[in-house]
Parts: sequence; structure tokens; C-alpha cells
Amino acid sequence: MQDTADDLRLRGKKIGFVPTMGYLHEGHLSLVDEARKRSDIVIMSVYVNPTQFGRGEDLDKYPRDISRDEKKAAERGVDYLFVPTDKEMYPEEHLSFVELDNVSHVLEGEFRPTHFKGVATIVAKLFNIVKPHVAVFGQKDAQQAFIIRKMARDLNFDVEIVVAPIVREEDGLALSSRNVYLSPEERNQATVLFRSLKLAESMVAGGETALSKVRSGMIQLISSESDGKMDYISFVDPACFGKIEETGSLTEVLALVAVRFGRTRLIDNMLLRVRDET
Amino acid sequence: MQDTADDLRLRGKKIGFVPTMGYLHEGHLSLVDEARKRSDIVIMSVYVNPTQFGRGEDLDKYPRDISRDEKKAAERGVDYLFVPTDKEMYPEEHLSFVELDNVSHVLEGEFRPTHFKGVATIVAKLFNIVKPHVAVFGQKDAQQAFIIRKMARDLNFDVEIVVAPIVREEDGLALSSRNVYLSPEERNQATVLFRSLKLAESMVAGGETALSKVRSGMIQLISSESDGKMDYISFVDPACFGKIEETGSLTEVLALVAVRFGRTRLIDNMLLRVRDET
Repeated sequence: MQDTADDLRLRGKKIGFVPTMGYLHEGHLSLVDEARKRSDIVIMSVYVNPTQFGRGEDLDKYPRDISRDEKKAAERGVDYLFVPTDKEMYPEEHLSFVELDNVSHVLEGEFRPTHFKGVATIVAKLFNIVKPHVAVFGQKDAQQAFIIRKMARDLNFDVEIVVAPIVREEDGLALSSRNVYLSPEERNQATVLFRSLKLAESMVAGGETALSKVRSGMIQLISSESDGKMDYISFVDPACFGKIEETGSLTEVLALVAVRFGRTRLIDNMLLRVRDET
Repeated sequence: MQDTADDLRLRGKKIGFVPTMGYLHEGHLSLVDEARKRSDIVIMSVYVNPTQFGRGEDLDKYPRDISRDEKKAAERGVDYLFVPTDKEMYPEEHLSFVELDNVSHVLEGEFRPTHFKGVATIVAKLFNIVKPHVAVFGQKDAQQAFIIRKMARDLNFDVEIVVAPIVREEDGLALSSRNVYLSPEERNQATVLFRSLKLAESMVAGGETALSKVRSGMIQLISSESDGKMDYISFVDPACFGKIEETGSLTEVLALVAVRFGRTRLIDNMLLRVRDET
């Protein structure tokens, strides 16, 4: 893969990169479109990275279907599909990790303490292997996108990070490979994530500045209309991912939710426009 | 620098890289020769990286003389000298660090707990900025060289790591920018590091397999012939940097010493050939 990337670069080609864990859905494929717009050659990786799964998480049962992925990627115009094995990615005792202070340990990082260490490390590895000019990530994993952008800047990776919007089902459920875990009943209830975010959007647009009140409204909605267990409902400054409780002088607030349905954990988020009082 | 590196690579040039903290001596310049042998263009960086100095260490008084460095580098045939400022290397709150488990926390890492985190991070940054094909480090900082080689492998940096031999004064003292801190008396005594390593070399070559005995001999020599305070005298398997107390089945053992003279801390090391009993 490194030789191919070197060769493409020597020929003056601009490389766009879409790293995924496979089991491709329209969300992933929309990232391919974004990469295509910005590059000559689109490389997609499919790799379920073990170091970003915690003990007891769903590494073993994470859905995989590489022949379907190959077909979908080819149909969407991916030029190279990079599908390394664990042996190739971690051939010996692995000691070197990329870690981020602060932002790795809140929100998702609180519930999945080693998750972002694994994510930052595998993305650094993939950047060094695929040598992209541009890499595209999905806004669905908002904290991940923030961390990768920050890592790329801090460690001087010469890669433009593009974050593409969430793709949703018609009823608002954010696309996720993990949605296949849901029972029909859970699948119906799972729209409460999106609906709670829409509620937050309208409250903040309507002038609500106390985010604790917005959170209460969301909790009320989720608990009355589903059996989901909330891991967190949080609001952060999208510029630094610092938690906030008041809209203050911000023009935009990022609302994030994580809800469990049985053993399936879903996340979603929305950028809320704060009403301009002037 | 990234644009220059891209341009060199597009023109098919092989980039050799010598990262330094400046105050150049013959040790650094020998790395330039090694880089020259393996590349078309030699890039040297001079940067005293604050994140690899601990609290109370010598960051502020670390010797600097950039105009002398420029002259020496040019005379030795360095093509590009990269001299970034702190503002350029750490322009904003820096959150992303490269860390290595185990090997970062022994020996030097025990006495300088955050040192290798700073080293691995700055080298990752410099690799992403200078984009070398080959990078040359000195064996004087043996643990650093091991850590960088391991990091490059673990994180898939497409950079060949070359480690060049220690350059010594005629009386055996390893060249180091920190040698300028030594008083004339300390400078004389400082040869005990080299002499203790030569003693170890002859004991192990002579068939001594118990490294505790070798250490005793070295301690005896250092304490009787100098006022140096020993931080450690250690023996490791050069393949994994694991500490050992017996030569066992190894054919080579790496001996490492760290000794303080006043406030000046010197390190040295030597690869010892184990006597072949067959």
C-alpha cells in the first residue's frame, strides 16, 4: 500500500482517503463522494481495529461482510480498497500509541476509556500507510472527528481533514453499522435520539440559553418514548469540545447523545444554532 | 518545509534527515555523513524541544549557538537547515502525544519520566514535516534510538531508521553538547563512564556471565576514580531493551550508564560481545 501511495504521489495524483470498519452503508459511501470531489484517486480502508474496542465491547460480533463491501465500494467508484489483517497491522508486540489529553477522556471517552487511544493510533498508522492528501470522516462520530482533526494538526500530518454530514434514514435515525443489532421494536424506538436533538434544536433556536433545561426536555422525551438507557446528553463548544451549561456568547452549540437499547449503544449529535438576540 | 519536502519527493530525490538540538559537535556531523551516504538531499533540524525536558532540567541553559551551527552544517554539506521556533512547533494548546509502553519508563525514563513522550512526539512531528526517506540518530542515546525505531515500526512511518556509532574524544569521553557544562576537573573525571564500559566489555568477553559482578566492578571503578553520582548501571537485551542480570544465551549485551557530575548528567553505553563458549 505504501509503494502504491508513493507511486500515485510521484505521478502527481491527489489521494483521497476514507477509513472505515466496513459493513458499508450510505453514510460511508457519502464519504467516498466527498473524497472524490477533492482528489484524483479514492482509497478506502476496511479494518475493524481491535485496539479501539474495550473489554466486553462488540469486537467479536461487529458486523463484517467484505464481499458486499467490495461490491458497494466498487459501485461508488473507490479506486483502491485496503483490507489489512490484524497480523499486518499489529505484527509484533505493539508499544506505541497516540493519545490526546483531556478531549479523549470525556463523553465517549468516559464510557469507553481506551477507545480514542485506539482510534488515534490506527488513524496515525493508516495515514502513514495510505499517505493521503485528504481524509474524510463522518460527523456521526463527532468526538472522533474532532480528535482526528486535532491530532493531525498537533502532529503535523500533512493531511486535510474533511468532516461530512450525518446521513439519516427517512425517520431520522443516523446510519450506523450497529443498527443491525436492533430488534424491530428497538429500531422503532431508536428514532428518539434524533427527535431529542430536534427538540434541543428548537428550544435553543427559540431562545433557551440554559442547557440544563434543554437536557431535561430531552431526557423527558427519551424516557417517556423509549426503553433506552441514556449514557450521556451533553453540550459542547464545537471549537474545543469543552462541556458547557449555558449558550453564553456562542453562536453554535454541539449537542451529543448516547443511548443504549439492550446491548446496542447508539450515538448521535446535532449542531444547534443559538438564537441571535441582537 | 512540507512544501519543500513534497517538491523534493516529486523530483524523485531521496531525503536524508538528521534531527538535532543544535550546538553541533562531531557526533552530530558524523550523522550527516551517514545521511549523505543514503540520500540525495540532507536536511538537518535544530530544535531544542521543550516537551522532552522535565521540570528543573536544563531547558533554559541548554547550550545554543545557531550561527555556529549554520556554519558547521554548511561545511559538512547539509542541504537544508530547518530551525523552527516554539510558536511554529507548538502553535496552540498541544494535546496529542506519542507514547510507548514499557520501554519509555525504564532507565532514562525512570529518571526523566516525561522525556521519551516528548522525544517520540517531536520526532513524529518532524517526520511529518520533513518527510524523510531515511533518518539518522546517534547510538549515544541508545534508548532514544531504540524507541524511535520501535515507534517508526509500530506507527508505520515509512522512514528507514539508521543508528550511527558513538563519536568519542581521544580519551574516550562520548561527545555531547552537555560536556560544555563540565568544569576542568569534572571533564577529567568524566572518562570513568567510558572506562567502566571498557571494563565491562573485558569482563564479559572474558567469560563473566553474572552481570551483577560486572556492575560491581563498574561501581568500584567509578566511585574510586571520580566524584560522579551514579543514576544507573544497567544491562539490557539490545533486541527488546529488557533488563537482564545474566548473559544467558545472548551473544550481545548492551551496557548503559548514567552518571551525574554536579548538575551535569552524562550517559554512555557500549555493546558487549559475550564470549562464545562453544
